[in-house]
Amino acid sequence: MTHMPGLYVPAITPFTADLSVDTARFVTICRRLLEDGADGLAVFGTTSEANSLSVSERMAALEALVAAGVDPACLIPGTGCAALPDTVALTRHATDMGCKGVLMLPPFYYKPLSDEAVFAAYAAAIEAVPTVALYLYHIPQVSGVALSVPMIGRLIEAFPSTIRGLKDSSGNWDNTASVIAAFPQIETFSSSESLLPKNVAAGGAGCISASANVNAAGIMRLIRALGTPAEGAALSQVSAVRAACEGMPLIPGIKAVVALRMGDAAYARTRPPLLPLTSDQRTAAERAAALCFFKESAA
Amino acid sequence: MTHMPGLYVPAITPFTADLSVDTARFVTICRRLLEDGADGLAVFGTTSEANSLSVSERMAALEALVAAGVDPACLIPGTGCAALPDTVALTRHATDMGCKGVLMLPPFYYKPLSDEAVFAAYAAAIEAVPTVALYLYHIPQVSGVALSVPMIGRLIEAFPSTIRGLKDSSGNWDNTASVIAAFPQIETFSSSESLLPKNVAAGGAGCISASANVNAAGIMRLIRALGTPAEGAALSQVSAVRAACEGMPLIPGIKAVVALRMGDAAYARTRPPLLPLTSDQRTAAERAAALCFFKESAA
Repeated sequence: MTHMPGLYVPAITPFTADLSVDTARFVTICRRLLEDGADGLAVFGTTSEANSLSVSERMAALEALVAAGVDPACLIPGTGCAALPDTVALTRHATDMGCKGVLMLPPFYYKPLSDEAVFAAYAAAIEAVPTVALYLYHIPQVSGVALSVPMIGRLIEAFPSTIRGLKDSSGNWDNTASVIAAFPQIETFSSSESLLPKNVAAGGAGCISASANVNAAGIMRLIRALGTPAEGAALSQVSAVRAACEGMPLIPGIKAVVALRMGDAAYARTRPPLLPLTSDQRTAAERAAALCFFKESAA
Repeated sequence: MTHMPGLYVPAITPFTADLSVDTARFVTICRRLLEDGADGLAVFGTTSEANSLSVSERMAALEALVAAGVDPACLIPGTGCAALPDTVALTRHATDMGCKGVLMLPPFYYKPLSDEAVFAAYAAAIEAVPTVALYLYHIPQVSGVALSVPMIGRLIEAFPSTIRGLKDSSGNWDNTASVIAAFPQIETFSSSESLLPKNVAAGGAGCISASANVNAAGIMRLIRALGTPAEGAALSQVSAVRAACEGMPLIPGIKAVVALRMGDAAYARTRPPLLPLTSDQRTAAERAAALCFFKESAA
């Protein structure tokens, strides 16, 4: 099966001075990312500091986004928490709101977990919200819990109409290729835009990338250029931005670049345990910002 | 400073058939552990599957325990979550209820975290609940976030009347010894009763141990026997139980032994991602149960 390659942005979550969720800026940046051409938003991902937000904060922010006119059919909010009742509450809420799907981490406190345990956790969430459209989230270097190809296969076999895709944030292309080859019917996303040509050539569905927060227009340009003479230049640009972002603490760095782009330092705030960039690191953010491709500069 | 050696039990959380928190059995097992002589309960620890519970489930269970007559002054509930607002809500609730203190994990999703980041996370929680009595929880093999001696020192310097102790679940005695030596004024607990003699001799405060769920009376016997001719036999018994428990998946194994002890299979239920023991493993649980020292059998 071939998928239309797409870009879903794990939009940052801005905070007010007292570190509450800044709903107004959240709506503003989300709209901007869609204006830049992103196919949708994977709000409440790792880059969104979602695991530093309470369940009620996530629900309120999602409701604000939809109330502001963002089509829920383009949203894949993250809903996987350490505690099953929280995962179920968020998954039910997003599903009831008409979201395209949810991007679900496995429970990430207890470890090591067997495939059997990971399967049981996903199965319990699906049985609680049978109408969910589920995208699996593999980010073992952060969650501490890997989603193995056999475990994914068992989930697809048990819940064929539920499992819609997977985001592979391992950074291991061989793993992504294995998932795409084994399960061509689901949408498999890479976490880096640098892997877009490989992902799409193999039958993947595109990318869900942190640095799309600052370079969505550039990544969309690459998607349109795939297989054309413009591919090389477009790939060089997105790879340069990606590398610049990876040269900083990733999430505070992305937020600092967003702040530069928006001309509004408030976007750079982070919630503990994440810390804003130091002044040295802010120089790196300025270098990264200079590499980004913003739609308004695409003359 | 010398501390009276104590035992705080990270009591298991029983579940009903539909995997809700079984408040009645929770109260029953907690009372039994106190009858066995434990100084108190570190409810909602790792062994308690606390990170599989929602904030409201934890609050309701704590309220039920106190309503049933358990003195909050003997309770040190776990309150550290991935998200700061959850940590603050639980910490405020436990503090307002008059608990002896709270046992706080660092935020455990984002990693690696610098000492600066871990400090900022604890400082934010303390500033939100300035009256908290705080016990730090070091369990890097599960949380993925270590509490270094310099970071602990910085917290104690910044919040000298707030930081009351630390549970070292690393299993690394050298680390525990370093913490006790550097900060003799705080109560430092080991996570294994096998380390009690070393812990107490060094100036530590005792233990908070998973296997105390099934051997609290045995561990109390060891504490009373420290420095007497009875110490060796008491230490052998607790070490044998500990080793037997570590020969099974720890938390489901402890729950299975509790079920055997209580003559009630319902205590063995676990919530995903944890799975109950397999039938082979249940044989190991029976062997472990046979080694436990229950007060009623102490004729």
